[in-house]
Amino acid sequence: VCTSRCQKFLISRVGEDWIFLILLGLVMALVSWVMDYAIAFCQQAQKWMYGGLDSNMLLQYLAWVTYPVVLITFSAGFTQILSPQAVGSGIPEMKTILRGVVLKEYLTFKTFVAKVIGLTCALGSGMPLGKEGPFVHVASLCAALLSKFLAALFGGLYKNELRNTEMLSAACAVGVGCCFAAPIGGVLFSIEVTSTFFAVRNYWRGFFAATFSAFIFRVLAVWNQDEETITALFKTRFRLDFPFDLQELPAFAILGIACGFGGALFVYLNRLIVECMRKQKTINKFLLRKRLVYPAMVTLIISTLTFPPGFGQFMAGQLTQHESLVALLDNRTWCRQGVAEEFDYISHSHAWKHPQVNVFITLILFIVMKFWMSAVATTMPVPCGAFMPVFLIGAAFGRLVGETMAVMFPDGIHADGSVYPIVPGGYAVVGAAALSGAVTHTVSTAVIVFELTGQISHILPVMIAVILANAVAQSLQPSLYDSIIRIKKLPYLPELGMGHHEKYNIRVEDIMVRDVRYITLSSSYREVQEVLMTGQLKTLALVESTDSMILLGSIERSQLQSLLSLQLGPTRRLDHLRRHAQDNGTHTHTLGAHTHLDTMDSPPSPPCTHTHSYTSNSSNTSARHGVRFLVSVAEVIWNPLPQIAEWEEQQLDEPVDFNNCKIDPAPFQLVERTSLHKTHTIFSLLGLDHAYVTSTGRLVGVVSLRELRKAIEGSVTVTGVKVRPPLASFRDSGNTTSVSEVTELHKLWNRHRGLSLPREPTPPDMEDQLDLVFLCE
Amino acid sequence: VCTSRCQKFLISRVGEDWIFLILLGLVMALVSWVMDYAIAFCQQAQKWMYGGLDSNMLLQYLAWVTYPVVLITFSAGFTQILSPQAVGSGIPEMKTILRGVVLKEYLTFKTFVAKVIGLTCALGSGMPLGKEGPFVHVASLCAALLSKFLAALFGGLYKNELRNTEMLSAACAVGVGCCFAAPIGGVLFSIEVTSTFFAVRNYWRGFFAATFSAFIFRVLAVWNQDEETITALFKTRFRLDFPFDLQELPAFAILGIACGFGGALFVYLNRLIVECMRKQKTINKFLLRKRLVYPAMVTLIISTLTFPPGFGQFMAGQLTQHESLVALLDNRTWCRQGVAEEFDYISHSHAWKHPQVNVFITLILFIVMKFWMSAVATTMPVPCGAFMPVFLIGAAFGRLVGETMAVMFPDGIHADGSVYPIVPGGYAVVGAAALSGAVTHTVSTAVIVFELTGQISHILPVMIAVILANAVAQSLQPSLYDSIIRIKKLPYLPELGMGHHEKYNIRVEDIMVRDVRYITLSSSYREVQEVLMTGQLKTLALVESTDSMILLGSIERSQLQSLLSLQLGPTRRLDHLRRHAQDNGTHTHTLGAHTHLDTMDSPPSPPCTHTHSYTSNSSNTSARHGVRFLVSVAEVIWNPLPQIAEWEEQQLDEPVDFNNCKIDPAPFQLVERTSLHKTHTIFSLLGLDHAYVTSTGRLVGVVSLRELRKAIEGSVTVTGVKVRPPLASFRDSGNTTSVSEVTELHKLWNRHRGLSLPREPTPPDMEDQLDLVFLCE
Repeated sequence: VCTSRCQKFLISRVGEDWIFLILLGLVMALVSWVMDYAIAFCQQAQKWMYGGLDSNMLLQYLAWVTYPVVLITFSAGFTQILSPQAVGSGIPEMKTILRGVVLKEYLTFKTFVAKVIGLTCALGSGMPLGKEGPFVHVASLCAALLSKFLAALFGGLYKNELRNTEMLSAACAVGVGCCFAAPIGGVLFSIEVTSTFFAVRNYWRGFFAATFSAFIFRVLAVWNQDEETITALFKTRFRLDFPFDLQELPAFAILGIACGFGGALFVYLNRLIVECMRKQKTINKFLLRKRLVYPAMVTLIISTLTFPPGFGQFMAGQLTQHESLVALLDNRTWCRQGVAEEFDYISHSHAWKHPQVNVFITLILFIVMKFWMSAVATTMPVPCGAFMPVFLIGAAFGRLVGETMAVMFPDGIHADGSVYPIVPGGYAVVGAAALSGAVTHTVSTAVIVFELTGQISHILPVMIAVILANAVAQSLQPSLYDSIIRIKKLPYLPELGMGHHEKYNIRVEDIMVRDVRYITLSSSYREVQEVLMTGQLKTLALVESTDSMILLGSIERSQLQSLLSLQLGPTRRLDHLRRHAQDNGTHTHTLGAHTHLDTMDSPPSPPCTHTHSYTSNSSNTSARHGVRFLVSVAEVIWNPLPQIAEWEEQQLDEPVDFNNCKIDPAPFQLVERTSLHKTHTIFSLLGLDHAYVTSTGRLVGVVSLRELRKAIEGSVTVTGVKVRPPLASFRDSGNTTSVSEVTELHKLWNRHRGLSLPREPTPPDMEDQLDLVFLCE
Repeated sequence: VCTSRCQKFLISRVGEDWIFLILLGLVMALVSWVMDYAIAFCQQAQKWMYGGLDSNMLLQYLAWVTYPVVLITFSAGFTQILSPQAVGSGIPEMKTILRGVVLKEYLTFKTFVAKVIGLTCALGSGMPLGKEGPFVHVASLCAALLSKFLAALFGGLYKNELRNTEMLSAACAVGVGCCFAAPIGGVLFSIEVTSTFFAVRNYWRGFFAATFSAFIFRVLAVWNQDEETITALFKTRFRLDFPFDLQELPAFAILGIACGFGGALFVYLNRLIVECMRKQKTINKFLLRKRLVYPAMVTLIISTLTFPPGFGQFMAGQLTQHESLVALLDNRTWCRQGVAEEFDYISHSHAWKHPQVNVFITLILFIVMKFWMSAVATTMPVPCGAFMPVFLIGAAFGRLVGETMAVMFPDGIHADGSVYPIVPGGYAVVGAAALSGAVTHTVSTAVIVFELTGQISHILPVMIAVILANAVAQSLQPSLYDSIIRIKKLPYLPELGMGHHEKYNIRVEDIMVRDVRYITLSSSYREVQEVLMTGQLKTLALVESTDSMILLGSIERSQLQSLLSLQLGPTRRLDHLRRHAQDNGTHTHTLGAHTHLDTMDSPPSPPCTHTHSYTSNSSNTSARHGVRFLVSVAEVIWNPLPQIAEWEEQQLDEPVDFNNCKIDPAPFQLVERTSLHKTHTIFSLLGLDHAYVTSTGRLVGVVSLRELRKAIEGSVTVTGVKVRPPLASFRDSGNTTSVSEVTELHKLWNRHRGLSLPREPTPPDMEDQLDLVFLCE
């Protein structure tokens, strides 16, 4: 009793949202911390093995190479078996889900386990992979599971669908936030990456949950004695008084532009690799059969190249991502004269200082090698992201530019008296933000670097570089996530970018489909059957009559299929046969056999709580009986039960009874003159799948996501997923049509094609309809 | 030729958006910098006057008091005369405008001039007023004017209304961004404060423009030799290694909660003052007559209390806001023993150290006095914001808590070895963010403080305090801006806050108005006239017929008024009289007189490019002619032209000719079962004014903003503004009805009331309509 009262008190006072967000933050912080711990352990184990075998170079090489291959292969295999949905970043999928598309199996417990374990192994292998994209997915999985769990515990609100979308968008923020301990950047990044239109009330939720999560994540580090107090993950110590000179800004701007080109190249390279693999049919077939060969091969190549005594010595191969980043963000200048001795006490910087090779060569090799390695590694079928590798490459590039600047201006650029030497670490920060911003098409990477480094002194250079990088990258390539959406053919509406001004001039009438599938109030079941066989949209328009074409609403296909199944279903069929038998007094044993068959084959009929009234058609039926009888004689040869075929024909000719059929009485409507820009806005805002185009109440066309997408970027076909607008939950049908019903329907259709010539579904002459009484805008 | 080609090249290559944003950023940075310069000059002038008169205390007092009184009075008077719309913050108005409401005169050049000059004088007076809110308004004004200017120069795109909304929302970001040199915080703050739903593509625009603006703003400072390089406005120098101890977090949390209460109190106090002034009729009347007395009085009181040799010496009265803030964010501890000598070289800290009074007393006095002073000062009818004063009070409160902590733990809390003393300046940062966050109900103040101080090391305490302050303040009071919206009775849809879960259960059918005003396809002009006289909504529903009630579209009132004016207008009237005269061959001189009158009085008739066809009604008209003639005899007494009255009657009985009438064929529709939550979302997303409720195409009700607002928060009446959804620009009517036409209509109506008993507009029995053939969800 006390527990339940306590629950009620908590819910009424604190609010369900809060409990949910706190729990989500807590769980994600724990998951993140445990995973980081496990990853660090894996990486240490590799180092320990490699270090222990320093007597024999071959053994050392085998250990260095085998370890990541085993881990990656395990990760790929485990994910493949448990849940293939866990592969990859997860951000493209979350973007699609938040757009209102239902992706099956993406938010299940299996996927959660596969993602967490697969990701830990993949990152533990030391490959250039990131944790941030998958973490968005993990957080969303957490939110979905937590939501289910709380719904089972408390019931009520946790079942609301709109609310779930709100919670998912908060979860995305938590994912980024607790991954980088960057709550603000996390919220902004998740907004930029997943949303088109953002509800400001969700922003609040995201902030709260992400802050809580980041706090717990860092507190765990303090409790574990890793840190003295809560500070940034990659704390920098740049001077505060004079972070940079105004005259350095052109260098930062050039760095930003170069990062923009680099980012676009990365996205292009990543897509090129995937497409190459797909097109090469021999490779493709081989890889499809041996799914684990590709990741193993890639890992082998990459780890061979980073083997420290081999080529790895020229590109700081023995450092983990974390160590490399700490070194790159260091506030010392590497290339200055007489700094060689300084290197000794900086933890990881000696890796960059090869006795024979200049630090510039090391940096360039690092950038070039890591660039293609990351692009290749992120195509492996394991849970992995690309943010962190790209961030690292950006930091290295920035450091390269910074060191160059330091060589060019050894005493700084400042003219008046005091010497302020150039800080190459600042360039590294700028480069990291710019390159990751260019690849993901976001500007919030700027905020992420401030939170990651704990310093905001370089705000202007970072902002300028990020914006320039974005401007360049956005004009060359889609973002990495949009690129993956295209590769995976997820149903997503592309953005109207800056400068798409011609879109203001295209009208709905230019892109709409004029040949709309519709049914009328007086349609017969036969017409419904014919309409159902054609078209792709999930709903069909209901108009008053073919003459008036006044749009009354829309009906889901599944609803019409149930209507049809009900009309021709086993219950009524049996009923008819019984009555027929009673009338004729014959065929009793056939009937018995058929009854048996019917009850065996047919799916259980949907619960039917209403009684149909067929009185209106009884006279008509009996009148046609004579004619029908003659026809049925001819059918006897191939139809074992002529009376059934006859009865079916009769049933199909009856007008549809729309009682108990769920009709959406207000489907979204546009007018012919609505601009493409406005249509895009409305589709994005409401998460629509399609909208009818009307002219004073008269249906004149339909626009679906497909037409819109074509109009924006050319034709992209989408198959295999169910598109569902988030704001259409009130159209939910209780009795969904099962697959077997559809099959049954197709059987029926095929049989009737043999019997009677199928009527061509008469397309309404839309050109006439446009010439209306009203002169509309 | 070259210029125009150059223009075209620029537009096609760089994009109009970019040029616009760069120009906007540049202009705003210049405005901000010039204004800051002028304000600083004004404040220096006061100090100089005050300093020069140190021989005579009375003269000194007079100078100290007169100067701000003159400035504020001038500001109030100037604004009053030039543009009363420039008074106050501007954020509530921008919120309303971005919601889709047209506020007249809010974005004109006059308002711009009034706002800029008024604000400069108001801030130059040294009163506790802020610049940030008005700056949002100034930036929006700039954007609107720039848009108009560019439209005149280039034409084309600058006229698009949707685009203007996008530009205005970028302008808001620029306003905050260049005011604080805080581009990220500016974007976020403006989003939180002005938007309900935010288009992520605008985010990009805002970032770009705000960064550019902040950059130019700071570059101007460098060029002017104020700064050595680009740094934060209020740069802090807290230690980076150990910014705060984990055990200090409870103190930060308590600070946050206290700020939450303080923020709510501030909003309450501010509203209380306004409401008191309104209710006290004697005061109210007096103030309405002498509008400048109130600001002068308030300024007199406040400046008397801050007079440095008087009470001001106990509350650092001689410091400007800027100086106070610099002192409060100082990284030294004021209360530590033996630090008195340190104070000497810190520029402004000596003001806080009174020889007789403890620094704690000074701080408490400062907080209490500034608190009510700011609440009162922001009610003055001058352009002013409340953000900066609140920020300052928050910083003082934080400093107070920090100093207390420093006294309690003189060697810091840290247990292990090294001594990390407490940094009271960090508390000041946290307090400033928390209090301003509580007053404005935003969390982005956290980002603003990081950008203002140039340090992000206190991110977790700031975030925790801001979130707690928000949680407390949001549960007690609306935000300051929402409070002003209520006081000014602006038409705005309140937010569905966290925890409004019961809103998921209210349906549209519970709140909709069932007695909808509508016209049918076969309505006569008389019916249209009657419908026009009732109801408030801007549009009227057009249904097929009273029986079917099928919604065909909606027509703007103004459209119907033009139709009516056209039907009964002077052109047709004259036409009729001529024909009448030709038929009868009499009344020629009366006709001549009337013609003269008509052409004198009537407004020019709207351009009419079509020809009406009245053939269908001609037989009907002639048939009724006999009956009408008898009636017209009785009218002769008071109507000088009986044939006109008769003719009017005939005209009114004709069915409406909807040719050339602009009909919106797809007004937004809801269904009865749509939840309040969903309705709120759709209204906010699309900026709707009202939506029709239909049931399978049949009109059953209407929901307007008013019903929705009532359902959410109780009744708030709104009058005097024209509500217009931003996505409804395609409903724009070319021929808008002028005021004179409406008056004419009313005259007609009144005359006809005298003639015939007005038919009661028959309300359709909606209860019957609900009982439909279809069973709808």
